[in-house]
Amino acid sequence: MRIIRDAAELRAATQGWKSQGERIALVPTMGYLHDGHLALVARARQLAPRVITTIFVNPTQFAPHEDLGRYPRDEAGDIAKLEAAGCDLLFAPGVPTVYPPGFATSITMRGPAEGLEGTHRPQMFGGVALVCTRLFGLCAADVAVFGEKDWQQVMVVRQVARDLALPLEIETVPTIRAPDGLALSSRNAYLDAAGRQQATALHAALEHAAARLRAGATAAEACGEAEARLREAGFRQVDYVALRRARDFGEMTRLEEAGRVLGAAWLGQVRLIDNLPV
Amino acid sequence: MRIIRDAAELRAATQGWKSQGERIALVPTMGYLHDGHLALVARARQLAPRVITTIFVNPTQFAPHEDLGRYPRDEAGDIAKLEAAGCDLLFAPGVPTVYPPGFATSITMRGPAEGLEGTHRPQMFGGVALVCTRLFGLCAADVAVFGEKDWQQVMVVRQVARDLALPLEIETVPTIRAPDGLALSSRNAYLDAAGRQQATALHAALEHAAARLRAGATAAEACGEAEARLREAGFRQVDYVALRRARDFGEMTRLEEAGRVLGAAWLGQVRLIDNLPV
Repeated sequence: MRIIRDAAELRAATQGWKSQGERIALVPTMGYLHDGHLALVARARQLAPRVITTIFVNPTQFAPHEDLGRYPRDEAGDIAKLEAAGCDLLFAPGVPTVYPPGFATSITMRGPAEGLEGTHRPQMFGGVALVCTRLFGLCAADVAVFGEKDWQQVMVVRQVARDLALPLEIETVPTIRAPDGLALSSRNAYLDAAGRQQATALHAALEHAAARLRAGATAAEACGEAEARLREAGFRQVDYVALRRARDFGEMTRLEEAGRVLGAAWLGQVRLIDNLPV
Repeated sequence: MRIIRDAAELRAATQGWKSQGERIALVPTMGYLHDGHLALVARARQLAPRVITTIFVNPTQFAPHEDLGRYPRDEAGDIAKLEAAGCDLLFAPGVPTVYPPGFATSITMRGPAEGLEGTHRPQMFGGVALVCTRLFGLCAADVAVFGEKDWQQVMVVRQVARDLALPLEIETVPTIRAPDGLALSSRNAYLDAAGRQQATALHAALEHAAARLRAGATAAEACGEAEARLREAGFRQVDYVALRRARDFGEMTRLEEAGRVLGAAWLGQVRLIDNLPV
């Protein structure tokens, strides 16, 4: 696997592949890779003969008080995992490569960026849209693969790709879970043993809400019960449990069409998110 | 020449060309075409085997009080000129094709978008960056051609293409002028006979400033004299005459390296802009 940190060197590599008619599948990550990421790489390998994984902890999507500085990193471990997964190229740029001096563009997203994560992390989705757009272009990606664990992010990335008519497809892979249901996440590394056990309540609460919605409960009832279960399980704060339409992330008061139940809650200083199709 | 108004039909056309290995050069315009636009089409024909011209009066780059509603239009005349110029395809979409329901992305530009036109028309360059990015993608352009008359716009388009790593090149064509020096512009159609004569003073004032800068005058001196000449010639308001670096649109107090002298001023209700290399 080639490891590249420079934009010009990356361009030479991708142009070489493109000149051979080889399509490129991209897996954008923030590193500290787990089996969820590796499922994205496996899907990428099905989609294109060349796979690029990016590792970049994007400062523009973190607010000043958030965990940018302590976000977990393990590049050597990540490289070993990507080698084993059959990734062709790791692009691991520094901040000045992604945002060179004189960088002058910012993106604001409405629509699927509004509410839920957009309310609690208002800086995030503009930063996500910007860095994804730039990485898509730098990597000359024909398709990019995202995990459904960050469902709202997927909706935002699909939206910016559609709105800016970017020349690539967006593919998603269902969330990979531990045997007890906890969605794999780099931020799980922040949990101590007790927190790790409590954390399973997030998936369980969303399953409960999904079952109640399928049985005809209103979104207010189903999500309210899920929030109560989270508090009982030891989550100190519930940012939201909510139902949204799968199609366009619009709100629904009941399960009128295919939807998604999403939740975000705090175990001590660790913020966890998850979602389920319903 | 094919005339297409629909995004899916356009995609079919461009994919057909791309599958033949044919590059596409794009000329984005707001219509009411003059010889300046046709020089862009001629340059596009040199750059790629396939040329697309777009005609779209972009609402997101006009402020409410500006001339969106009365912007001059003559599609039949434009089609005849483009046929004669050897354009392969005219893309003339309606607003819902460029901004479909649910469109949720906006762009903000700093750097070269700041000052001058960015001060007097603060809504403009974000709108320009957005519509150009979208049109580049919809048209699958390998290269886009812009006129140097809108120099600051060229700087902004280059910046957004670089920042978003868009897969195309930006080419420019020097301003086409009437024999008396007036830069060709669709907005010249607003001028009456007296205004048309007075308008030549804009080019003359910029020539004066450029000569004074080359002779060692400060930007304040050279541009101040040019502004005074514009007022004497009957311009009722001078928005600016200014010197900027050619390279990055930064300010210079004297002519220290290749620059551009730019001016914007009002003749009655008509706002004219122009610029010169210096």
